Amino acid sequence: MNASLQLALLLLTLGSSRGLQPDLWDDFEEPVEAERVVAASRFGSLWPLPQKVKISDVSLLLSGLTFRIADGKGSSSGASCSLLQNAYRRYYEYIFGHSKRQPEVESFPAGPSVVTELQVLITSADSECEGFPGVTSDESYELTVDQPYAVLKAPKVWGALRGLETFSQLVYEDEFGAKSINSTTISDFPRFAHRGILLDTSRHFLPIKVILANLETMAMNKFNVFHWHIVDDPSFPYMSRTFPHLSQQGAYHPYTHVYTPSDVKMVIEFGRLRGIRVVPEFDTPGHTQSWGKGQKDLLTPCYSGDKPSGTFGPVNPILNTTYDFMSKFFKEIGTVFPDAYVHLGGDEVDFNCWKSNPDIQKFMAQQGFGQDFSKLESFYIQKLLDIVATTQKGYMIWQEVFDNGVKLKPDTVVHVWIGGGANEEMGKVTAAGFTTILSAPWYLDYISYAQDWQKYYKVEPLDFKGTEEQKKLVIGGEACLWGEYVDATNLTPRLWPRASAVAERLWSAADVTDINDAFSRLSAHRCRMVERGIPAEPLFSSYCPREYRGI
Amino acid sequence: MNASLQLALLLLTLGSSRGLQPDLWDDFEEPVEAERVVAASRFGSLWPLPQKVKISDVSLLLSGLTFRIADGKGSSSGASCSLLQNAYRRYYEYIFGHSKRQPEVESFPAGPSVVTELQVLITSADSECEGFPGVTSDESYELTVDQPYAVLKAPKVWGALRGLETFSQLVYEDEFGAKSINSTTISDFPRFAHRGILLDTSRHFLPIKVILANLETMAMNKFNVFHWHIVDDPSFPYMSRTFPHLSQQGAYHPYTHVYTPSDVKMVIEFGRLRGIRVVPEFDTPGHTQSWGKGQKDLLTPCYSGDKPSGTFGPVNPILNTTYDFMSKFFKEIGTVFPDAYVHLGGDEVDFNCWKSNPDIQKFMAQQGFGQDFSKLESFYIQKLLDIVATTQKGYMIWQEVFDNGVKLKPDTVVHVWIGGGANEEMGKVTAAGFTTILSAPWYLDYISYAQDWQKYYKVEPLDFKGTEEQKKLVIGGEACLWGEYVDATNLTPRLWPRASAVAERLWSAADVTDINDAFSRLSAHRCRMVERGIPAEPLFSSYCPREYRGI
Repeated sequence: MNASLQLALLLLTLGSSRGLQPDLWDDFEEPVEAERVVAASRFGSLWPLPQKVKISDVSLLLSGLTFRIADGKGSSSGASCSLLQNAYRRYYEYIFGHSKRQPEVESFPAGPSVVTELQVLITSADSECEGFPGVTSDESYELTVDQPYAVLKAPKVWGALRGLETFSQLVYEDEFGAKSINSTTISDFPRFAHRGILLDTSRHFLPIKVILANLETMAMNKFNVFHWHIVDDPSFPYMSRTFPHLSQQGAYHPYTHVYTPSDVKMVIEFGRLRGIRVVPEFDTPGHTQSWGKGQKDLLTPCYSGDKPSGTFGPVNPILNTTYDFMSKFFKEIGTVFPDAYVHLGGDEVDFNCWKSNPDIQKFMAQQGFGQDFSKLESFYIQKLLDIVATTQKGYMIWQEVFDNGVKLKPDTVVHVWIGGGANEEMGKVTAAGFTTILSAPWYLDYISYAQDWQKYYKVEPLDFKGTEEQKKLVIGGEACLWGEYVDATNLTPRLWPRASAVAERLWSAADVTDINDAFSRLSAHRCRMVERGIPAEPLFSSYCPREYRGI
Repeated sequence: MNASLQLALLLLTLGSSRGLQPDLWDDFEEPVEAERVVAASRFGSLWPLPQKVKISDVSLLLSGLTFRIADGKGSSSGASCSLLQNAYRRYYEYIFGHSKRQPEVESFPAGPSVVTELQVLITSADSECEGFPGVTSDESYELTVDQPYAVLKAPKVWGALRGLETFSQLVYEDEFGAKSINSTTISDFPRFAHRGILLDTSRHFLPIKVILANLETMAMNKFNVFHWHIVDDPSFPYMSRTFPHLSQQGAYHPYTHVYTPSDVKMVIEFGRLRGIRVVPEFDTPGHTQSWGKGQKDLLTPCYSGDKPSGTFGPVNPILNTTYDFMSKFFKEIGTVFPDAYVHLGGDEVDFNCWKSNPDIQKFMAQQGFGQDFSKLESFYIQKLLDIVATTQKGYMIWQEVFDNGVKLKPDTVVHVWIGGGANEEMGKVTAAGFTTILSAPWYLDYISYAQDWQKYYKVEPLDFKGTEEQKKLVIGGEACLWGEYVDATNLTPRLWPRASAVAERLWSAADVTDINDAFSRLSAHRCRMVERGIPAEPLFSSYCPREYRGI
């Protein structure tokens, strides 16, 4: 529909198929057959697709010399809002490239077909510029592109951030390399409030640089929650001020493989500037092997016969010292992480060690739990939840905690992850009145040949039996990239653009399901990520005008 | 067994298994259960394992200030052999790091436990320093590490290159960070002469930088053939001097997505300096859509009913102009690529277009081919092979050409790629007296969850029914990374260290099959690749002392 789209046309061919051995032919679908040109989408390279879009045929020009992004008149955020000022610079650079600087010019030439300014107007009295994003943050915005001004209106800075990304996605290069944009009106808001990415920094340590690059990419895809699965069995990289031994003993390395308080602050602020919440997960009572190294008596000693075997199981739920520790630890977490929620895990507790321990057995008898160790698990979790509630935090938990009948605060978010039966689980959780987020179909650590993004894209989170009221309790979902097989070497290309499929599902309207249109827009979107320095992997045989410059 | 191995110990835990949804549990094997430390190999981080290794417990020191790699007395290669001089510098930098320079020192302190020099001695009269590696090149070497000198003896420079890599793999850091090496004797040679990697630059264009990085990594793994699948249906990036229209019309972009003659030269020389052959593949008569754009009348016009449909099929085998073109084209290829072999493809010819074309039908009748289009295919290939034979080149072909009964020169290499029946095919090809290489089990573009390197590692290329004479005709194999889903963003971590599994299978003795020992060595080898700047992906939950610094 316009010159940039012509440029973005991707010539795709079935290519291979020496690449395709006969016995594998049936395992995947290819979106194209023989040589054919995939038609450009009438929505260009917009991703995720906004709720309402009208793109006219009128093409306007932008000049790096004259174009500016500035606060509109009457905006409740002024020059002191560095969140927006940072975003203006960031998007100016994305649009015009890092190498160009805006020189002093005496006159700002403008013409009938030039857009000289994007005016950003925060319309509500409190712009929330200094605040943190939250699950109720307003991310809506209205964008009008016309000459000589484009106008972006949003009640809060969060919507302005989303609108700036959208504006930058509307800009294209015409056949002479001139930056162009079509006259457009957009009205947009997210379908779901919680749109997250889970990264796991325990199975492999992820250097801060990798985390920041992925927060940056999340913003390009309008994700708004970084679920930081920060510790787990293999390592404890979180440096605690209250319990420094935890990382000194439990990290892969006490200096090179830890997140210092400054690192954590930087991640949180980097996220905030992009409208991204940082929700840390400190998973207990299972998944805690690394905790035991720096905190004596925290884990349950396992027994072999009538003697301790030297190995340890889940957190020891029968000692008062355990709860003293948890109180202090989560008090620190509550102050370090500003988000209103903390993820408390609670999944996959292995009962074998508890069963082997005579003290635990005695306690079970005293409590009248019989041999039902899920009651002991619930006993622990209940006490933990009560502790965390005193820190004024809400909590998220993996679905087992709900399944086991633990009493939950009404604002608890239940995280559904178990594949097979996830739909029924969503029904149960919402029938019980709890908000929920979905991850089961979006475990991106599972890889397979060919275009698995289509599988993620086709998921419908509300596809379960339930009332309208129940559906409203689904506040979103998360794409999870567990860390067994990813580290700094391969995480970014493995996550993008596969996670982009989840991004559109969670942001765009429910009826945005055309897989061919999505293929076209996503191909262009991935090339844009590449141009912005992110090694997002290809969807299929194709090319980008500017290929990735790393290796 | 030594301090570096202590450092290299990898603490592995079963980790997940929220990462592991129940229905996926059965699909893969994990090498470790619960938390356990994987024992270091007594062979340290050597990869691929040399044929004979004796590592003593005597630890010696190396100093970046005094250590040098130099030509040994009586070596047939002197200071003028820049291939070796370049290698000395490269391995010095790998051992001591890029940041350190060797300053002028007045005295070279040495002690009873210091290695001050690695003497490299080329023992045969012709070192082959100025030559190109070939399938008969001698890659053997003998390495003795002792104080004050280590000695590396090799008949040819090719063996010296392999020995330098091995020497660098013996060096480790002790607990104080001092570079150390144990007194060692190694006698080594490859099990198979042809150890290749196929990269596909047609489905995605690979910037030269990516190709060079992978040649570098190939050398770290003792691979010696870069099979450059340079053109195919989607694009024609090879810039031909004789037929410049081929890339001008057939490349994704005529300037940014082509390999100029200088680029090709650079790849060849970069490979030569590392003992790596560059074998180009120009696949015909199928897989040639991109050729047709710049070369009129080369491809067969397909018909729809009695009219040309506007689409094209394989190379047109019935026109004299086709063979004129091929003669000129392969004459150029023969001079541009110095290797004794060129890969002529010949796979997956789709007969539908030929069937539709009335001129082809007429020709079939004239020749008495009936409706057997494989006869027409063989007719074409036979003429092509005869043309290429006049350029004094040998050729490799995909297995279909053999299967179809085309008459082949005795020195033809038949490339077995079809999964299912590959063993039988190896038997047939060698029974007919042809040399062969195996790729069928090593299609690394197929990805799956978890440690698929083990699957590649367990392949035994000689596991087919045949005589000893037949087995000798198996000269090696190639790991293939077809390009549908890889480009500069993800190619390198997807290839390494998975291809390293193939490297050891093709270099080391047949009885090197201990998967736990391999896991330990390969984990350390992959961290070494990472430290050398290559984003080789992890095998499993773990860490490297120095993580990858890119994103």
